[in-house]
Amino acid sequence: MKAYKIPEATVQRLSIYSRHLAQLISEGVITVSSGEIARGVGVSSAQVRKDLAYFGEFGTRGVGYNVQELYSHVMRILGLNHTWNVMIVGAGKLGSALAVYKGFEDRGFKVRSVLDVSEQRIGQQLGDLVVESLAFLEDRVSRENIDIGIITVPAAAAQEVTDKLIRAGVKAILNFSPRVLKVPDSVVLRNVDLSVNLEVLSFNLSFGYNLK
Amino acid sequence: MKAYKIPEATVQRLSIYSRHLAQLISEGVITVSSGEIARGVGVSSAQVRKDLAYFGEFGTRGVGYNVQELYSHVMRILGLNHTWNVMIVGAGKLGSALAVYKGFEDRGFKVRSVLDVSEQRIGQQLGDLVVESLAFLEDRVSRENIDIGIITVPAAAAQEVTDKLIRAGVKAILNFSPRVLKVPDSVVLRNVDLSVNLEVLSFNLSFGYNLK
Repeated sequence: MKAYKIPEATVQRLSIYSRHLAQLISEGVITVSSGEIARGVGVSSAQVRKDLAYFGEFGTRGVGYNVQELYSHVMRILGLNHTWNVMIVGAGKLGSALAVYKGFEDRGFKVRSVLDVSEQRIGQQLGDLVVESLAFLEDRVSRENIDIGIITVPAAAAQEVTDKLIRAGVKAILNFSPRVLKVPDSVVLRNVDLSVNLEVLSFNLSFGYNLK
Repeated sequence: MKAYKIPEATVQRLSIYSRHLAQLISEGVITVSSGEIARGVGVSSAQVRKDLAYFGEFGTRGVGYNVQELYSHVMRILGLNHTWNVMIVGAGKLGSALAVYKGFEDRGFKVRSVLDVSEQRIGQQLGDLVVESLAFLEDRVSRENIDIGIITVPAAAAQEVTDKLIRAGVKAILNFSPRVLKVPDSVVLRNVDLSVNLEVLSFNLSFGYNLK
């Protein structure tokens, strides 16, 4: 499957470009230059062209990009041209917040199942979903065709839950627990540490550097 | 205040290096090379050297870096050599989850105040804190020396809350709402969209590219 290396920062910027392009579509804009995209999202136009160049040739020199075509293309690159089925394991405060987070569904991530071990949490309503027992993990992964598992359990339980998800056939894990998880090469793992967002602010407050 | 431009990706990597260095310190490691840091966190050693070079000369050729010194230096660059006081506005599911998120305090971000407008939420206990009325915003910013405001209110209320925080003297805003916020140049703003994390997984699932 490995083709060539795309920097993760490029993928994150593609995500930002796609939001900006969606905005332009809603404003009725037909064509856009790399310079206009760059100004709209706060990067250099060379960066925009370089990011897009990883995925082939786009646009017409002197005319720019057709907004709708570029948007569709970027969404396809990101794998956002269809819905992904998501399971959240751990219905504590963070898991519950993610279960009803509007931003996920807007981008094609549909939370289909929320599981927990706690008797207090099982049966709790979260939007359209009801928290179910972790004992149903394998059944729900199969029944709901779960693509992505989100881990919001305490650190001590995170590896065991990860192993269960992988045995059930889940190919991608988003880990919010502070535990470093082991997964086979065939599984995509991403660790989220929410404090990184505060650290970028802290850096700016301390040094007053302008971030690119 | 503006010195020169540091890529945000560099700041995020410094944050990752600092965690790896903390781990090495706990293992009793005294010196480390850029290659060892690179392997530990999954980037190239040239990238590690380039990131550190923004902030002056480090290490001794052929010997590497003193782990403790490099850790202290990186933490100072990130502004993590002291505690930052944080206010959360919006005590819904996400705000409540962030109020008790252990990762913040571990990195020097201390949530001092959580505010909301809802009568149901005011008075609710979140860890050591009690949710208070938004009417106390100015008083609490001043009394707790709030450095950073986290916005977890609905989109419709986000700009008004931001304006209040800025008038009260807050210099940095972390925005979890989907609203695009206007802030003066003197205020640092960072928008968080949690679905970006899922989009990186979606990209990987779709294309199987190995991210750098």
